[in-house]
Amino acid sequence: MAARRVTGPEIERLIQLLARLPGLGPRSARRAALQLVKKKELLLIPLAEAMATAAAKVTTCRTCGNVDTADPCFVCTDPRRDGSVIVVVEDVADLWALERAGAVDCRYHVLGGTLSALDGVGPDDLAIAGLVARAAGPEVKEIILAVNATVDGQTTAHYVTDQLAGLPLKVSRLAHGVPVGGELDYLDEGTLTAAIRSRQPF
Amino acid sequence: MAARRVTGPEIERLIQLLARLPGLGPRSARRAALQLVKKKELLLIPLAEAMATAAAKVTTCRTCGNVDTADPCFVCTDPRRDGSVIVVVEDVADLWALERAGAVDCRYHVLGGTLSALDGVGPDDLAIAGLVARAAGPEVKEIILAVNATVDGQTTAHYVTDQLAGLPLKVSRLAHGVPVGGELDYLDEGTLTAAIRSRQPF
Ligand SMILES: [Zn+2]
Ligand SMILES: [Zn+2]
Repeated sequence: MAARRVTGPEIERLIQLLARLPGLGPRSARRAALQLVKKKELLLIPLAEAMATAAAKVTTCRTCGNVDTADPCFVCTDPRRDGSVIVVVEDVADLWALERAGAVDCRYHVLGGTLSALDGVGPDDLAIAGLVARAAGPEVKEIILAVNATVDGQTTAHYVTDQLAGLPLKVSRLAHGVPVGGELDYLDEGTLTAAIRSRQPF
Repeated sequence: MAARRVTGPEIERLIQLLARLPGLGPRSARRAALQLVKKKELLLIPLAEAMATAAAKVTTCRTCGNVDTADPCFVCTDPRRDGSVIVVVEDVADLWALERAGAVDCRYHVLGGTLSALDGVGPDDLAIAGLVARAAGPEVKEIILAVNATVDGQTTAHYVTDQLAGLPLKVSRLAHGVPVGGELDYLDEGTLTAAIRSRQPF
């Protein structure tokens, strides 16, 4: 009985596609589809148009890997940014997070993942050659490795550092420590040890 | 610095619209937008098309309130269903949930919400008049009130029952009790009391 048709195949297809978005399971995809259909003028039609526009215009920056409607992207062509520093991130989401934080005012390079023996991701699967080529440019002075503090992230950071070894560059990584607002009681031992080792004068 | 442009306005608009879907906050909307853009051929373009199709074809059944591409909908026109029973639900999502469960094999009526003094929802804001008209049909023998076990849901059930009082119908409601797989220790007192009162011979 559960397989009986109660709504059209068009809505079933919408639910199936929505369920493939990160953060939406089958249940919330159904709720989202229903919301879309109920708010046809306010939400469904504008979203369909926004998606069609994005599909037509959005591209990946061949310089840094950012997602934008221009190639090179706005970050790469912004003349006010400090071109002597390149922040290396795993994913575009990390680039956006650092920008939202206003953490830096320089260029980026998106690797597109991390090295992973388990998932079969090798150096050629990541944008490492492009980074080395950019890093060899005369204006570049520092590479900041802003990869995740995971085993794969750190393995990747070591590999990238090795590839950059011949260049006259400063290579740095993000500090480990207590997150702002973080309570010591909830932090793991590795973070606490790192925070003690990197302690600062008060 | 945080307001600097790092990606195109087309993606910002996509993120803003996605954030209005239930289940997606601003953070997961960004992740979803990024996933869409990365999987342009596999996800973004098909979803844009599915939404455009749904916008063009989907309608609300004027008989029962279900959402479908046909009016009357597939439930209302299915000749194998028992037309003597109408299950009254608050929302289309509840209709779909009962159908997924295969709980009944009859018709439905979607009220479109519950009476709520707080939210200013009165009888005329719900599809109650339409229900009374349908319930007066000669083939209808039973109305099952499948509203939520909330204060507003129960208030609505009482109001609907009063409106149906003149008709030669059986009016029933869902049983209260222990959910299948539920552990007594985690249930509230009202549910436990209801489950004891409605106990069944073993
Ligand atoms: Zn770029
Ligand atoms: Zn219907």
